[in-house]
Amino acid sequence: MAQIKEQRTLILDAPPTVMAFAAVGSKKEAEGPLGGYFDYLDTDGTFGEKSWEKAESSMQKKAVEKALNKCSLSPSQIDFVFAGDLLNQCAGSTFGLREMGIPLVGIYGACSTMSEGLALAALFIEAGFAQHTMAVTSSHFCSAERQFRFPLEYGGQRPPTAQWTATASGAAVLGPGQAPPYVRAVTFGQIEDLGVKDANNMGAAMAPAAAATLQRFFEDTNTNQDQYDLILTGDLGQVGSELFVNLMKAQGYDLGSRHSDCGLMLYDRKTQPTVGAGGSGCGCSASVLCGHMLPQLKNESMSNLLFMATGALMSPTTTQQGETVPGIAHLVWLSSNPS
Amino acid sequence: MAQIKEQRTLILDAPPTVMAFAAVGSKKEAEGPLGGYFDYLDTDGTFGEKSWEKAESSMQKKAVEKALNKCSLSPSQIDFVFAGDLLNQCAGSTFGLREMGIPLVGIYGACSTMSEGLALAALFIEAGFAQHTMAVTSSHFCSAERQFRFPLEYGGQRPPTAQWTATASGAAVLGPGQAPPYVRAVTFGQIEDLGVKDANNMGAAMAPAAAATLQRFFEDTNTNQDQYDLILTGDLGQVGSELFVNLMKAQGYDLGSRHSDCGLMLYDRKTQPTVGAGGSGCGCSASVLCGHMLPQLKNESMSNLLFMATGALMSPTTTQQGETVPGIAHLVWLSSNPS
Repeated sequence: MAQIKEQRTLILDAPPTVMAFAAVGSKKEAEGPLGGYFDYLDTDGTFGEKSWEKAESSMQKKAVEKALNKCSLSPSQIDFVFAGDLLNQCAGSTFGLREMGIPLVGIYGACSTMSEGLALAALFIEAGFAQHTMAVTSSHFCSAERQFRFPLEYGGQRPPTAQWTATASGAAVLGPGQAPPYVRAVTFGQIEDLGVKDANNMGAAMAPAAAATLQRFFEDTNTNQDQYDLILTGDLGQVGSELFVNLMKAQGYDLGSRHSDCGLMLYDRKTQPTVGAGGSGCGCSASVLCGHMLPQLKNESMSNLLFMATGALMSPTTTQQGETVPGIAHLVWLSSNPS
Repeated sequence: MAQIKEQRTLILDAPPTVMAFAAVGSKKEAEGPLGGYFDYLDTDGTFGEKSWEKAESSMQKKAVEKALNKCSLSPSQIDFVFAGDLLNQCAGSTFGLREMGIPLVGIYGACSTMSEGLALAALFIEAGFAQHTMAVTSSHFCSAERQFRFPLEYGGQRPPTAQWTATASGAAVLGPGQAPPYVRAVTFGQIEDLGVKDANNMGAAMAPAAAATLQRFFEDTNTNQDQYDLILTGDLGQVGSELFVNLMKAQGYDLGSRHSDCGLMLYDRKTQPTVGAGGSGCGCSASVLCGHMLPQLKNESMSNLLFMATGALMSPTTTQQGETVPGIAHLVWLSSNPS
């Protein structure tokens, strides 16, 4: 391993493999363009539970079980799981994982959680700290709405810049590098806060963080967009994506058709107009990655993907107190080649 | 580095040094037995801010600045900061650190945050991922009360098993191993949930997790309490400490006078009876460690410390929904000797 001097990107010497991955969603995700790529789709989002919070935990547990089944590992064979979610005190993860007996490294990165967890899970294998690790996260529209905005029963209106929190979860199992997809490098981002105060426009709040992290990665690796099939942000939505592309252009990087955003892929904004500016939530990027992207890297129909989940680090309390929305983005370079 | 086969404890080959550390507190902490060990004590807990949440962020920032000053490092020389707290969406850390420009790996472990962050900060240096890292956390009585129990204005009564959330923060800077204190090993815990449902008795909920992690560490390292000056839990308080000692005794480990608990050290329960069963909160164990323990390891008046912060992973919502309180404990072996 080498941290390049004065540089922040960690290039992995022995890139670990993402051995297995699973995506779980619900009704709206089933009706979206990626519905066919999910491993499990609940019909009504309750996952058989009596509260939305319990439903989210149940969903996250199901994603972990599906991923473990695919690589025939039991929870006792996982050395560490890196998990977190949007719920207060990360309760979705805690209660979803509590019966599994896997050492838990709890993380919080808002909607950047999947890239943060994937990065840590890969680094622990690179360093020899673990044989097998997992990264998992989730979000649930109904638990998130009542926590961050209003209870569903209130029937609140949403402005067009608002994004739709995905009811989805993604889980990945990592192990020693043996087959694609490989984790080649990670860049942890720093907080960027340009003063956006509208919690219904989180894409705009997160775009500067995504641009800063990607620029850092390009500079550290002396590459640009042309070396990657896809630069996948999540979840900037329509508003944030445009800002992000423009910010990168101002720095001399013309992403063109190489950029997509998980929040724009999970739903069809024409046939599903209630999603507003697109999908969001930890589970959005996690399920798009685990359901749709990792399979393409595994079968080598895609060679290089920069996965960059983005997080808006506000809380309802900070918003009520007039604070701005700090953003963060962590980047993971996934490849069908180990070197 | 070696993960011992079938074992969970990570023994560090090149133990990093905790280069500098700082503890910040407020009025009640000043009046307690450890008041003289803090680097900064605010007179009224506002830290000059207009809300308790902003006060907590300001306090955490101050702890980071004090620690950086002690080792003459600037924020730009820190490769990664591992930070989290009790506030919803970890807002204490996010807003405390947002202007520093340090890559942020957000963590959530409730009151176990300091040992989780310290463990990750040490492992990143052990693995060569970083030259300098930081671990920081905080808690604030007033922001925690209104989030987890009732707003102060309500004047709610507290049962004697309840603990008092410390208004405190602790920050540590880690670098290559050159002088004591060294981080020798870490054990990440798994969730233990024996069915305690009383959110006013978190010590009882966390004691089984602490016992499980310590037993795991003893077995992995083939040691027992006699090889360590102190086994320091945080924050089990009076009720949880007794349970913890009994649980260890049942496993054949008689901790005797070698066990202390941060929650029982920070305040004097006789002269400060409002603290109930003792202190708690992320900042309790973090400030006791950074203010009182690390100095003893640095001047070698103490040789070996097992620091094991404990977390209760419930949220107010899960408690209202009748859920139990899952506990977790992570262990860090700190030593005045590198081997």
